Parts: sequence; C-alpha cells; structure tokens
Amino acid sequence: MEQILSEANNLVISIDAMGGDDSPRVVIEGLALAAKKHPDARFLLYGDGPKVMEYLNNYPELKKVCEVRHATEVVHNDDKPSQVIRNRNTSMYMAIDAVRRGEAKAIVSAGNTGALMAISKLVLKTLPRIHRPAIVSIMPHQNGRYVMLDLGANTECDAINLTEFAVMGDILARHALGIEHPRIALLNIGAEEMKGREEIRQAAQMIKSSHLNINFHGYIEPHEIPEGVADVIVADGFTGNIALKSIEGTARLVMRLIKKSVKQSWLAMLGIPFMLGAKLKLKKTLDPRLYNGAMFVGLNGLSVKSHGGTDALGYSVAVGNAITLVRQDFVATIRDEIEKIDLDELSQEILYDSY
Amino acid sequence: MEQILSEANNLVISIDAMGGDDSPRVVIEGLALAAKKHPDARFLLYGDGPKVMEYLNNYPELKKVCEVRHATEVVHNDDKPSQVIRNRNTSMYMAIDAVRRGEAKAIVSAGNTGALMAISKLVLKTLPRIHRPAIVSIMPHQNGRYVMLDLGANTECDAINLTEFAVMGDILARHALGIEHPRIALLNIGAEEMKGREEIRQAAQMIKSSHLNINFHGYIEPHEIPEGVADVIVADGFTGNIALKSIEGTARLVMRLIKKSVKQSWLAMLGIPFMLGAKLKLKKTLDPRLYNGAMFVGLNGLSVKSHGGTDALGYSVAVGNAITLVRQDFVATIRDEIEKIDLDELSQEILYDSY
Repeated sequence: MEQILSEANNLVISIDAMGGDDSPRVVIEGLALAAKKHPDARFLLYGDGPKVMEYLNNYPELKKVCEVRHATEVVHNDDKPSQVIRNRNTSMYMAIDAVRRGEAKAIVSAGNTGALMAISKLVLKTLPRIHRPAIVSIMPHQNGRYVMLDLGANTECDAINLTEFAVMGDILARHALGIEHPRIALLNIGAEEMKGREEIRQAAQMIKSSHLNINFHGYIEPHEIPEGVADVIVADGFTGNIALKSIEGTARLVMRLIKKSVKQSWLAMLGIPFMLGAKLKLKKTLDPRLYNGAMFVGLNGLSVKSHGGTDALGYSVAVGNAITLVRQDFVATIRDEIEKIDLDELSQEILYDSY
Repeated sequence: MEQILSEANNLVISIDAMGGDDSPRVVIEGLALAAKKHPDARFLLYGDGPKVMEYLNNYPELKKVCEVRHATEVVHNDDKPSQVIRNRNTSMYMAIDAVRRGEAKAIVSAGNTGALMAISKLVLKTLPRIHRPAIVSIMPHQNGRYVMLDLGANTECDAINLTEFAVMGDILARHALGIEHPRIALLNIGAEEMKGREEIRQAAQMIKSSHLNINFHGYIEPHEIPEGVADVIVADGFTGNIALKSIEGTARLVMRLIKKSVKQSWLAMLGIPFMLGAKLKLKKTLDPRLYNGAMFVGLNGLSVKSHGGTDALGYSVAVGNAITLVRQDFVATIRDEIEKIDLDELSQEILYDSY
C-alpha cells in the first residue's frame, strides 16, 4: 500500500486505530463510511497491525486507500496524560507524529481526550503567534449550526486568548460550515449590575479594533445560543465546557422526561405510531453523532477527537470534519490571518485606553 | 388594616407592588393565590396606593391580610442600579426598608433585578461573617428538585465565598426542599488534564474540613445535574449564571423543535390528541412558573426576585418561597451556622497545606 503516500496526495489523515470503546472495529467501520463520501482521502492507520488488518479485510474498497502501521502500545482511557505523553510507541503518539513529519495533515482519535490534547500540543506545537490552542465543536441551533470554542483546553483565558479564539472560530465557520461572513459573539452574562468578566470586556474591545469588527455580534447569553443569532461563540475553556455540558445534559433530560410521561399514559402510547416520523426527524436534528468530532485548533496540524463511545456514523463525521478542513487548508489560513493582526500590541492599546 | 402588624405576627412579607411587567395586577392576583395557601401570612404592599387598592378590592379575603402603603415613585426596568439605589421614595426601596426596620421578614419584587440586589445589599447589609451574598434558585432534576447558587451576584469568587454558598445552600435545601441531609456538590469541569479552577479545588478542601463533609458529593459536571446526584450545586455567579441560562435555553429549544417536527407531519398531527395527557404532565414538570423566585441570601433579611414576566401562579410561587423560609427562620439559621465555622481560618489552613 506504499503508493498511497507517493501519490503526492495532500488529503492524508492519520488515524489512531486503537482509540475508542470498541476499537479498532468502530474505527474501521467509520472509515469505510468516510471513504465512500470522500473518495480522494487517504488514511494512515496506527495500531495493532494484525487486529486492524482483520477488520480492514472486510472492506476491500477502504483497504485500497489505507496504509497500516504497527504500534506496540495503546493509550488507555484511565492513563494520565503525564504518564503517556512521552511514550513514542503508542498508536496515538505515532498517529500524531505522522502529522508533525508532514505525512498526514490531520489526526483523528477516539481515545483519551487529555492525552490526545497533551501529545498533540507537545508534538505539533502551537502555531507561531498563537498563544493558546483551543478545543472547538460544531453544534446545532434551531435553524442551522454554529461553532463554539474553547470547550476545555484552557481553564483561564485573557483577552488575547479570547480574541485568538474568535479569529480561529471565524475561519472554522467559513471553512467547515461554509458561512461567508460568520457572526461572532462572546459568551457572557447579562446581569444588570455587571456585564461579566474584565477579560471578556477587553476582548470585545480587541475584536472591535480588528478585522472581525464588521460581523461582531457583541455579547451573547447562553439562552440566546439556540436562537441562532451567532455562528461563532467564544468563551474561555472553563465557561465553554460548562455551557456545552449544560446544553447536552438538558437536551438528554428533556428527551428522557418526554419518554417517561408518554410511557405513563396508555392513551399517549396509542399515539406513538403517529409520532414516529416526527420523532425520527427530531432525532436527526439532535443526533449527537452528527456533531461528533471536537477539533483541537491553533497547532501546526489539526487534531480531531471523536467521542469514545460513538458508532461508525459518529466516527465518520469526525473524520469528515478533518477531511473538510484539510481540503480547505485550514491550518495555513489560521497562520496567514493571525499574521495580519498584532494581538499583543492591540491588547496594550486596549489596556492603555481603559486608564 | 393597621391591626395586621400589631398582631405580633412574624409572618409578614413586604411586597413591591409596582415591580413586574403587568403590575400591580399580576402581583395582587399572585398574592391572592399565596394567601389562600398560607392563611397565616400577612402582606405589606408598597406602591401607587389608589391603583393597588383598585385591584385589591377584587379580593376581599386577601384585603383582610394586606396593608397598603403609598409610594410616589417606581424603579423602572431600564434604570441603572446606581441611579436608583439611594432613592428612598420608590416602592422597591420602601418595601426593602420594611425588612430592615423589622416590620417584615422578607421582601418580594418582580422588578429590576440589578436594582433589587443593589438596594437589598445596601439597606439590609450582609450578615456578620458572611463575605458575599448570593442568588439562589430552586430547579428541577429528573426525580426531584435541587438548589443552585450563586446565579449571578458575584462574577468572581474565592474558596471562602464558595464554601459560604455551600453552607447557605445546605440550609436552604433543608428548609425549602425538606431534605434532611442535602448532598452538596461543586460545579466543575472534568477534563482530564486539569480538574477545574484553583478556587474550586480549595473550596473542596474547605468543605471537606467543615461540618458539611459527611454529605459532600465532590465535583459535579453540568450534564450530571439533571440526574439528581446532588441537592445543592455551588458555583461562582458567572459560572452559575452560564449553566442556568444554558439549561433554560436548551429546554426551550428542544420543546420548540418537538413542536416544529410534529407540525411538519400530518400523521404526527393525528397523534396529538393521544399525547395531550402526557404533554400536560411534562409541561407541569418543566413549567418555569413552578421554579420562579430567585432568592438573594446572606443578608439580614430575605429578598426574593420574581420573574418580571410571570403570571399570578408564578408570582405566588415566589411569595410561597419567601413564606416557607421565613416560617423556618432561615436567616437566623444562616447566622447561627456560619458562627460555628471560621472560614477565614479554615482557608488559611488549606492554603498552608498546599505549600
């Protein structure tokens, strides 16, 4: 299969075949779906060679666009990042290193999130002039999709970090969602006495002073997100993670309560057959598999985290995200756009202004 | 109606009759519902005397337990707290001041949140040994209710503040929810690399060293809240507000999506009659009116904020919260329990330990 890389194909995605609850089975099945949708993509699979081949043999078409490389070790879900970060023999490390060497443009793993982020940062390194990488996801609102970042890479952020997230989120919304002029908003609270935290107010000033000014929506409160008033939601990693998990938990709670109240009424049970079509449609809108694949952005290369418990469809969505962004040269765009604005200088100006 | 106060009845609630979108109508209708449920409660109504009397005359039973005091001015929703905080002629200020003078034990207003918080703090003053008051609400989980604080009074908090919130939340869950040993949890994120913010880790240490240790659940992530694993959720005001509004917004989004997908299918429309009972039941569980009445706790007196747009039922729930807590001498309990632990000393010990 050596010809894969010699074809000078730029659309090579490196895969940690051992990450996820039911790997490498789900990984291979997901890749088969992704390969059908993106026939020009090529995959470098790192993992237990014989095991990976066993599943790959079931998909002759996929096999043609894959190259398997044996890895002797695996990062487990309960491994602490610090324990595994320098172990170069894991399938995760090797898959990430393929991006550093330029063999692949992006890496996808359904494994240990903390380890994936830590190794990605160590191996790929942060892009020049980016202070902090961020975790970003694509999410549904009532009439479309939006991107939200940071979802947990940085517990505390300053105004420069938040502005960088806005720059990267803007590019991502253009490249992954195809929105020409994404509307950017800073996640904040709107209590009358105080409009949120100092760093958020400063970031608003910085964004207003940058090229993002035209489509800057200002502050957004979490309950406004589902209304679809913004395409890019920017927050520090702590706040973003709190919002994300509140949203996910509540969606699940409401769906569960609906099921429960229907089950407790025999009359409602009679209505179920009528509702099936509507239910399917709703399920499709809210299906978490369709929003799988958190992206770790701001590095020299793209690192995508698939949910560990997803199925083949969910995994293929994560791989699809990676392919779409590589095809559009996402990382190079960030590098170019961030070159154009000096955030450190901008932040100094904003700080001086506030005295 | 002067006899109301001479009866030496301790259950006197002071009411800002002019707060809220459709005041004083909704206020009076809400009080009528509350008075029926709590026949021993008495109300001091501050507002436009003739206007208040006009509505009150429709409820002769309620009128017997009310005393109306004329206020010449009103706090408007777009007033900045700083503009109105020292105006002693507003119905809001006068209603709060009745608590300071000891005429009433709690104040309820559906008016400007920021002004209510600012005037309450200025007039009632923070309880001795409490560093920061907090906003707290009662919320539904899948098989009961929980309290969450702070929901927005304090944008930034240290470990002492968070521990104080835990103490107050514990008392509130006992008094308002009737839970004998409330399980307390700190809202946090669970990313592998870092377990949240420093002040949260320190607060966990402080709670473990206090009398709350026995029922301390540890950290909770937002998606676990609906599962009902804790009765008291503690967060700084920024994070709490973000979580609260994410939860509210998502619940509304899911309900809206359900309606939309049913409406788009004629077959599903046929099923609607079967579903009505289940829908009613679900609506009752999630009805925001049943969770109305955010409480501002940690002051010498209780200040309750009703949603400005709620109806009579919602308003009566907020008044009911005030009555329940006054009946159980909530403020005195906080004063007594906070006396028993020296949080400043505890925090010093925790800090030393971490060196």
